[in-house]
Amino acid sequence: MTRVTVLTGGVGGAKLVLGLVHLLGAENVTAIVNTGDDMVHMGLNVSPDIDTLLYTLAGKSDDIKGWGRASETWTFMESVRSLGGPDWFQLGDGDLALHVLRTAALANGQTLSQVTGDFARHWEVAARMLPMTHATVATRLSTDAGELDFQTYFVARRCEPAIHSISYVGADTAKPAPGVIEAIGDPGIAAIVIAPSNPWLSIDPILAVPGIREALATAPAPVVAVSPVRNGQSFKGPTAKIMTELGIPVDSTSVASHYAGLIDGMIVDSEDPCPADGIQIARADIAMPDLSRKIALASDAMALAARIKALGVSSRNKAR
Amino acid sequence: MTRVTVLTGGVGGAKLVLGLVHLLGAENVTAIVNTGDDMVHMGLNVSPDIDTLLYTLAGKSDDIKGWGRASETWTFMESVRSLGGPDWFQLGDGDLALHVLRTAALANGQTLSQVTGDFARHWEVAARMLPMTHATVATRLSTDAGELDFQTYFVARRCEPAIHSISYVGADTAKPAPGVIEAIGDPGIAAIVIAPSNPWLSIDPILAVPGIREALATAPAPVVAVSPVRNGQSFKGPTAKIMTELGIPVDSTSVASHYAGLIDGMIVDSEDPCPADGIQIARADIAMPDLSRKIALASDAMALAARIKALGVSSRNKAR
Repeated sequence: MTRVTVLTGGVGGAKLVLGLVHLLGAENVTAIVNTGDDMVHMGLNVSPDIDTLLYTLAGKSDDIKGWGRASETWTFMESVRSLGGPDWFQLGDGDLALHVLRTAALANGQTLSQVTGDFARHWEVAARMLPMTHATVATRLSTDAGELDFQTYFVARRCEPAIHSISYVGADTAKPAPGVIEAIGDPGIAAIVIAPSNPWLSIDPILAVPGIREALATAPAPVVAVSPVRNGQSFKGPTAKIMTELGIPVDSTSVASHYAGLIDGMIVDSEDPCPADGIQIARADIAMPDLSRKIALASDAMALAARIKALGVSSRNKAR
Repeated sequence: MTRVTVLTGGVGGAKLVLGLVHLLGAENVTAIVNTGDDMVHMGLNVSPDIDTLLYTLAGKSDDIKGWGRASETWTFMESVRSLGGPDWFQLGDGDLALHVLRTAALANGQTLSQVTGDFARHWEVAARMLPMTHATVATRLSTDAGELDFQTYFVARRCEPAIHSISYVGADTAKPAPGVIEAIGDPGIAAIVIAPSNPWLSIDPILAVPGIREALATAPAPVVAVSPVRNGQSFKGPTAKIMTELGIPVDSTSVASHYAGLIDGMIVDSEDPCPADGIQIARADIAMPDLSRKIALASDAMALAARIKALGVSSRNKAR
C-alpha cells in the first residue's frame, strides 16, 4: 500500500490527483486543496478548487470546457440576468447545489472539511480532500488595474491586468485545517507531491498558512514538485503570463527556485531547460490530455520520490 | 382611471390579480400579498405567494403544472439529491435565482418590499406588489400529525393531516409593510378585493398583522370578496378539506361569515347556495380557466363594488 499527500489547486492539479487516484487507489491519496480562490458570491460560499477536484474525482467534470460540470444547465444564470443580478461569474444549475448546501452547512456550524467530506462521500470519492484551512484566506492581486480579488482578476478581468504582487489576505492568522499538518508529516506516506498548479496562485496560498511551509520542509517523506511550465509556456492558466509580469523567466529552473528548501525533486518536461542544481530531476511529458497520461505522470512523480528516498538525498531545510 | 387594492395569496388569487391587471391596467393595481407561507429553506428565503404572483403577472408561470415557472429545468434538484440534500421542496433552476438574489439582498439590509419591487421592475411588472409585512409571520398548523410548518403540511405532507387549528406565529408583533395601510385606506380606489385565495391559509395571515383588519373595516372604498368555493368544493387547494376539518360547511355562506364585518359584498358562484344576509351579492362563474374568464371575474368584482358604492350600503364595522 503506497500512500501519497498532494498539494493542489485547480484544473491542472486535479488532473494529477486523478492520476494518483488511479495509480494508488483513492483511499491512499490525501489532497490538500487551495482555498485562496474561495469567495462569497450572491451570499453563497463558492470553493472553486475544492469543487474542481470533486468534479474531477467523481467523473463529473466538463473536460471539454475545462471547468465546471458535465451535462450542466444554465437556467439559473439566465434567470439571474433577467432580474438584473450579477452575471460575470457563471454558476451552473448543478454546480449551484454545492454552493447552496455548503453555505447552509457552514451557517449551521459545520466546517469546510466536514462539508467537503460529506459531498465526497455522497459521490463516492474515496480520496481524502482537505481544505488548506477553515479560515478565510483570500488571494489578492496588486495589478496595473488596481487591487483585485482573485475571481475578479481571473474571471471578470480574464487575467488581463498585469500583476505587480500577490498577497494572501488573512493567511497570517489562519490555521491549517485539521489533518493537514499530519498528512504532510505522516511518516507512512511514500511522497508529498506538489501538483503542477500555478505556484503563485494555487500553491503559495497553501504555503502561506502558518505551519504548512515548515511541515513541508521537515516532512519525513520526499517532496516532489511537477513543473507547470515547459517550452516557455504554461498550459491553460496564466502561470507563464504572471511569471513574466513578475520578472521571472518562464522555465522549470524558476519554479525550482521558487520551491527551494521545500522540495527534494521535480518532474521537468523533456522540452524544458534543466532546473537549478541541488534537487533531483526526472524528465517526463508533463501534458495530461487523457487518463493514461495522468496516470503516467503520477507514476513518474512517485518513482522520483522513491529514487530520492533510496538515495537518501534531500535538498530541503529539514533536520531529519 | 379606476384603481384597486387586492389581498391575495397563491395561485387562485394570482389569477384574479392578472384579470384585474388586464381590466384596469397594471399601474392601477396594488396587491397585498400573503407571506405566511414564506420559509427559509437550505438557507434561502423563499416567498412562494410573492413569486407565484410575479410569475403570473410576468407571464412566466407554468399554467399546466399549476405552480412554478414555465420552461423550468431541474438540474439543481438532481444535484442536491445526489449530495444527500433535502429534496422534499422542489426548487427549479430558474426559480432559484429569485431565492438566491432575495436572500443576498435581505442579508444586505434590503427589505422584502424593495427586493420584490426590484424583481417586478426587471420583469416589467407594473402592478404594485406589497408583502403584507417585513416581519416573519409563519402560518403554523395544529394537526392530527402534530404541529406543522406551512410548507411541511402543504408540500411534504400534501395537506393530508387533518387540521385542528391554525396560528400565525409572529403576527402579534408584526407591522404592516410600508404602503399596506395606505393602499387599503386610499380614498381614490374604486374597490378593495379579497381574492379567492384560501381564507384561512392565505388571507387570514394578512388579516393577522395588527392594523390591517382595522384598516379594512374602516376603509372608504367598498370591500368585495370573491368566494373560493362552489358546489361544496374548492378549486386546486385544500380550502374545502380544511373547512370540513374545522367543522365549517363548505359554502359561500361560511366564507361570508368568516369575513363578516370586513366585507360589503361577495361574488358567489351561480352553483353555490346564497350566503348570509347583510352583504351585497353578485353571481358569476368563479372558475378562471383562461384569461378572458379572469378578466370577466375581475370585472364582476369591480361592478359589485361600484354597485355597493352607488347604493351607499356597507356591512362593515366601520364608522365612515
